[in-house]
Amino acid sequence: VGFPTVDINVDMGESYGRWRLGDDANVMPWITSANIACGFHAGDPGNMRASARLAIEHGVAIGAHVGLPDLLGFGRRRIDVTTDEVRDYAAYQIGALQAIVASEGGRLAHVKPHGALYALCSASREHAGAIAAAIAGIDASLPLLLLSRRPAPAVEAHGVQLAAEAFPDLEYDPGGGLVIEPVKQAWDPDRVARRAVRVVLDRRIDTSDGDDIEVDAPTLCLHGDAPNAVETARTVRQALENAGVTVTALRMSRT
Amino acid sequence: VGFPTVDINVDMGESYGRWRLGDDANVMPWITSANIACGFHAGDPGNMRASARLAIEHGVAIGAHVGLPDLLGFGRRRIDVTTDEVRDYAAYQIGALQAIVASEGGRLAHVKPHGALYALCSASREHAGAIAAAIAGIDASLPLLLLSRRPAPAVEAHGVQLAAEAFPDLEYDPGGGLVIEPVKQAWDPDRVARRAVRVVLDRRIDTSDGDDIEVDAPTLCLHGDAPNAVETARTVRQALENAGVTVTALRMSRT
Amino acid sequence: VGFPTVDINVDMGESYGRWRLGDDANVMPWITSANIACGFHAGDPGNMRASARLAIEHGVAIGAHVGLPDLLGFGRRRIDVTTDEVRDYAAYQIGALQAIVASEGGRLAHVKPHGALYALCSASREHAGAIAAAIAGIDASLPLLLLSRRPAPAVEAHGVQLAAEAFPDLEYDPGGGLVIEPVKQAWDPDRVARRAVRVVLDRRIDTSDGDDIEVDAPTLCLHGDAPNAVETARTVRQALENAGVTVTALRMSRT
Amino acid sequence: VGFPTVDINVDMGESYGRWRLGDDANVMPWITSANIACGFHAGDPGNMRASARLAIEHGVAIGAHVGLPDLLGFGRRRIDVTTDEVRDYAAYQIGALQAIVASEGGRLAHVKPHGALYALCSASREHAGAIAAAIAGIDASLPLLLLSRRPAPAVEAHGVQLAAEAFPDLEYDPGGGLVIEPVKQAWDPDRVARRAVRVVLDRRIDTSDGDDIEVDAPTLCLHGDAPNAVETARTVRQALENAGVTVTALRMSRT
Repeated sequence: VGFPTVDINVDMGESYGRWRLGDDANVMPWITSANIACGFHAGDPGNMRASARLAIEHGVAIGAHVGLPDLLGFGRRRIDVTTDEVRDYAAYQIGALQAIVASEGGRLAHVKPHGALYALCSASREHAGAIAAAIAGIDASLPLLLLSRRPAPAVEAHGVQLAAEAFPDLEYDPGGGLVIEPVKQAWDPDRVARRAVRVVLDRRIDTSDGDDIEVDAPTLCLHGDAPNAVETARTVRQALENAGVTVTALRMSRT
Repeated sequence: VGFPTVDINVDMGESYGRWRLGDDANVMPWITSANIACGFHAGDPGNMRASARLAIEHGVAIGAHVGLPDLLGFGRRRIDVTTDEVRDYAAYQIGALQAIVASEGGRLAHVKPHGALYALCSASREHAGAIAAAIAGIDASLPLLLLSRRPAPAVEAHGVQLAAEAFPDLEYDPGGGLVIEPVKQAWDPDRVARRAVRVVLDRRIDTSDGDDIEVDAPTLCLHGDAPNAVETARTVRQALENAGVTVTALRMSRT
Repeated sequence: VGFPTVDINVDMGESYGRWRLGDDANVMPWITSANIACGFHAGDPGNMRASARLAIEHGVAIGAHVGLPDLLGFGRRRIDVTTDEVRDYAAYQIGALQAIVASEGGRLAHVKPHGALYALCSASREHAGAIAAAIAGIDASLPLLLLSRRPAPAVEAHGVQLAAEAFPDLEYDPGGGLVIEPVKQAWDPDRVARRAVRVVLDRRIDTSDGDDIEVDAPTLCLHGDAPNAVETARTVRQALENAGVTVTALRMSRT
Repeated sequence: VGFPTVDINVDMGESYGRWRLGDDANVMPWITSANIACGFHAGDPGNMRASARLAIEHGVAIGAHVGLPDLLGFGRRRIDVTTDEVRDYAAYQIGALQAIVASEGGRLAHVKPHGALYALCSASREHAGAIAAAIAGIDASLPLLLLSRRPAPAVEAHGVQLAAEAFPDLEYDPGGGLVIEPVKQAWDPDRVARRAVRVVLDRRIDTSDGDDIEVDAPTLCLHGDAPNAVETARTVRQALENAGVTVTALRMSRT
């Protein structure tokens, strides 16, 4: 069987120009993967470079956090985009971050859609396939992070691996969907930590109706824009290690 | 000495969303390099892919046409950007296009700044060096196209080669500067062709005061947004070939 | 009873920066109302002023053509916006155009949502009410143009009048919905003119299944971005006048 | 003669979408004029409404804080804009805010350019005149706030009054220019208060070379994005009142 391992990923680089969001520098020490915004919903070239540099300094793996072109809505509003648009928006953003990361001496490790694009690709195999097509055109070894393995066939058809995530700091509805908070609220760090450990060791997470469901997730997502993001990340990291879990960046086993 | 050769480069992919600009499909047959807009002053992910595909079909070399973030001003208004901003904007745009071109089976061949960024980098060694730094971080083999070799030391310090351009369809002032037309006007194609041939064979171009100056340019730029762009490109190409010039994509000799 | 009258409205001012769209100057002579884009889906302050000036010169009534914030999608992609967002986006755009029109010596005459916002407000009473609330906060005498009178109660609750439109250059589905063309195609001007006359005299329009439906529309919308927009506008105008219809800007009778 | 009075104005509404900037709610009680960002450099329709509502609740006068179209640079980078562009950008933004303020039951009281546009209009009579032309086309009774009275002739030629400002929380160079801080730093509130009182009572402010210069300013600008903005505003307000100064919104005497 082997020792239990898990990745902790957090959205980073969500500042834009004069506006700051998230405490990237203080979250970095506790995580293993950073999803860096690529300019469509947040982030800009200068902030992308600063975030990439910070991740490389901390030995944190870097993912392209690709979003819909909606700065005003922070990429959280559904836009009726075609699959061609999803593919092209993703390719553009992945390429932009890849160049910046490469020029800082690093390399991309994964791709994760943001906000409404995440929901769209987790729900629609066609749109998940469109992002996978973009990845395959650039570097098929980059896994795609989504809410569940349901769109896996559409992703794997492009030779791209899908890594499902669990969200210990969000409520799940009984069907396994996430209850999104328009502005992320502070959660009790100990509760988040208990849910994180349970995801890794028991492969289960509680739902809003008091029941629980199975989750099979090699990576845990925490919210970097929560008011207590640093404390939560630290608490989760320590609880996982205390439970004997090795926290390490995502490494997909090739099938 | 060898046979005379020259590259013809044209700005392409300057449509944006619903708006069309330039007749890319009909200009492509006559040119050897296409500078594709990367989304900051014109272009969008879908148009970038369409332009890349078209260039690849025609065997035309592809350059990243990087601009200032000013869609409303079409990148033609000077913005006081720092050298860090120039480097980061360039890296972002080069990477975005590179990924799209790669996913279409092609590869980038050069980088050329657009409009006000072109003027800035041709006039300021610091800003030329900043773009060269971006190129060096991605692929130092991509030459940088600018108005003259004056900023060459700042560019070559990053291991990047500078290729100077000549503009047979623009007026030169006596100091060798270009007289920019806010909206490109139609020029007599035969006059443009005569100037093009003279640049290649005599290394000289006439100036607005009736005199002429030396130009040493391995590539000729024609304007794709001129009303008679297709006719001009065809006329120039044929005149060059009739004069015994081999028209072929830019190939820099490593020193 | 009285003599039949109708308004002809066309979307105008859809250029943006360097990009041109529509032949406003040559369409103006044939129409009575111009819907001027306000910068969210098309248009910019300079183009808005130029369009306002042109409309005033031709004695054409001016409407605020308010859109979703999506230049890249030309406002034609549905975005999940809240009613507060619709109200605020509409107020912002109406105010911006109102100031420009006033400074040219004119005044606004109506408000019409564009593209996906038009579809949203024609289908959702809550969103139609949100635009009406914006109008009421600025000038309740400006009528709101929508596809049908179905949302009238939500609009009139704010003291704003709703004017339904007919579209003689678009296909109707049997339910009275429009079949949108992503890029407007040329239609036979005579067919458009026959449909226009029938809307005014018979209050009926044909549908895609060969049947026809009732329409009660004091204004006819023609597409300014059709390739043959000028010829169509002229043909429709002349056919209406030949049929004894007075073509004049919308004047709502206060109930 | 008469009792000394002064206005305190602060930039407000500089949030954008998901991003927060400034503590508007806690600064409002101490000031008499709020310059609300209008969407070009900061602000969006929803935030503009929220800021307008807050100002009206506190009885604070509202100004249109018009900027260059540069969200990424927060309007602080000089862009080479023509006078027509300045006039049209200003008219658009003033109109947008005016409509929102009117729909909240308030009315505009002044206009103030932001950042690089402020510097441009304070230095160039042509550009100051262009903003004044925009104001005159909307409501000539709105005074225009600038750094000094130097461009007054160009402004007053349009029938618009110019109100000069003093900046007690910024360094002045010996020529009377401001030393801009790219990101506003915290200043000692007592020092700011002493300078504010001196501006009102002595009409002088100290400069970076240890000397001081004359200022004739009916309004004092404080920075709302300083880390200690609330404490500074409170300290200045109380020091002015303790010195017998009446703090009240700007009222220009018609000449």
